[in-house]
Amino acid sequence: MMQTHFDAIVVGAGPAGVSAALTLRARNKSVLMCYSDQGALKTAHRVDNYPGMPRMPGEEMLRIFHAQCEEAGVVMYPHAVRQMLPMGDTVSVMAGEELFTASCAILCVGVVRQSRIPGETEYVGRGVSYCATCDGMFYRGKKIAVISAYHEGVEECNFLASLAGETCYFSEKKHDRAGLADNVLVMDGRVTEILGDGKHVTSVRAGDEEFPVDGVFILRPATPPDQMIPGLALEDGAIWTDEGFATNLPGVFAAGDCTGMPYQAPVAAGQGNAAALSAVRFLDQK
Amino acid sequence: MMQTHFDAIVVGAGPAGVSAALTLRARNKSVLMCYSDQGALKTAHRVDNYPGMPRMPGEEMLRIFHAQCEEAGVVMYPHAVRQMLPMGDTVSVMAGEELFTASCAILCVGVVRQSRIPGETEYVGRGVSYCATCDGMFYRGKKIAVISAYHEGVEECNFLASLAGETCYFSEKKHDRAGLADNVLVMDGRVTEILGDGKHVTSVRAGDEEFPVDGVFILRPATPPDQMIPGLALEDGAIWTDEGFATNLPGVFAAGDCTGMPYQAPVAAGQGNAAALSAVRFLDQK
Repeated sequence: MMQTHFDAIVVGAGPAGVSAALTLRARNKSVLMCYSDQGALKTAHRVDNYPGMPRMPGEEMLRIFHAQCEEAGVVMYPHAVRQMLPMGDTVSVMAGEELFTASCAILCVGVVRQSRIPGETEYVGRGVSYCATCDGMFYRGKKIAVISAYHEGVEECNFLASLAGETCYFSEKKHDRAGLADNVLVMDGRVTEILGDGKHVTSVRAGDEEFPVDGVFILRPATPPDQMIPGLALEDGAIWTDEGFATNLPGVFAAGDCTGMPYQAPVAAGQGNAAALSAVRFLDQK
Repeated sequence: MMQTHFDAIVVGAGPAGVSAALTLRARNKSVLMCYSDQGALKTAHRVDNYPGMPRMPGEEMLRIFHAQCEEAGVVMYPHAVRQMLPMGDTVSVMAGEELFTASCAILCVGVVRQSRIPGETEYVGRGVSYCATCDGMFYRGKKIAVISAYHEGVEECNFLASLAGETCYFSEKKHDRAGLADNVLVMDGRVTEILGDGKHVTSVRAGDEEFPVDGVFILRPATPPDQMIPGLALEDGAIWTDEGFATNLPGVFAAGDCTGMPYQAPVAAGQGNAAALSAVRFLDQK
């Protein structure tokens, strides 16, 4: 069975996350790294200004980074974090299909460039959910829409369909939908609006049609951090941190692109290192 | 003949300086890097937490860093900066035996751990100098003490002896003194105090003896930054910078250990990158 409690959970496996994880390991902390197969560095054709890795494609840098993490004893869990909840002494983390706890967390989630569906932000927590495992039970016997942007959404949708009375699957982006359960209705159009009565979701619009639903699950490979963690403070669209890379939530730190410009691999790595040292101080004071 | 004007001069060749220089070159700026053969990283037995360079001795990291700088077109000048003067539009820099100018400067000088001689700080600019080339002419025909910590001091002392009336050479640390000119008096003891009348240096004390002098030249491989640049603001012993790594002096930026804790290679590299981007903005606004 997989270990489920860690000293620290690092969300994201770009330069910030890797640097944070390596520094935590150097200080002998147990580290879980959760990440989706994305990120700005992966798409970089070549990085010229990273000290120690001359003229290297971003994808190759990441390959080296991740091998280094594995060798250092970081537990790598290549699944997106759906939801995170600071619970006082620990942080609870839903990632992939697992629930983990950690004594602290470092968010290194990069910039999540994501257009939201009109109505989405307005109804978060009032019918809009990003976490099937977290909120599925609330929709037992109800009618739900699943809006999925990737293949991993299929499995989650099947879990939801085992609870819900009726499940409609909308694709937000083109992806492989093989494996969807028989009781899932596969829809053709894209959802262009989430509608409600001001208090709760009532329907979704796709093309010219409106579909009445009780809830909407939006499944995307990366979740914007303020959706991932309730109460996380942003500033100008980036995660707010103090000088030591602590967020407004106790035990939650952040580093790299998600904390703002400049978006540079060495800057992210430096911040990840500094955030990890702050996290170590936080852990040792407990 | 060596190029003497650059878009930017980077002082120091540790992770911060290397990162700054690479980013400046990536933005197509001409870069001179001045450095002495020192620094915290060089003495690091092994660094475990630098992303991309697994478990590497500090010295090997530096070798790779410097090769990368050379390949990127950074002009490497392995000599210590003795003095720096922001002149409005340019920064003048005395390094080794050369005078350079640059449109901006980035200080990445690390932590200069240095005990000062009693009286030294008190009489800087009033008889105590760190730069033979800058201040030698003021002592034409006078009596001076040279306090040297390393072999490079020999050549500087010979230059001073060609101007001064009488030159005494004191060693601050053991080093090779071969090559000292015949008209230099080699002294045995260590200088334990620099004395003055409150306005100007009057003598140095070594052992039980006091030697009347008009000036004192202190020659060490690394000069603390506030001695290197008149008017540079410090805070808690580190160089003060704003969030963009600008110091209090226009066109002068700073990054890495010299700006304060934590002393970590990835943090330094990240700050060097960010400081370089600020410097690029400064250059482009000119």
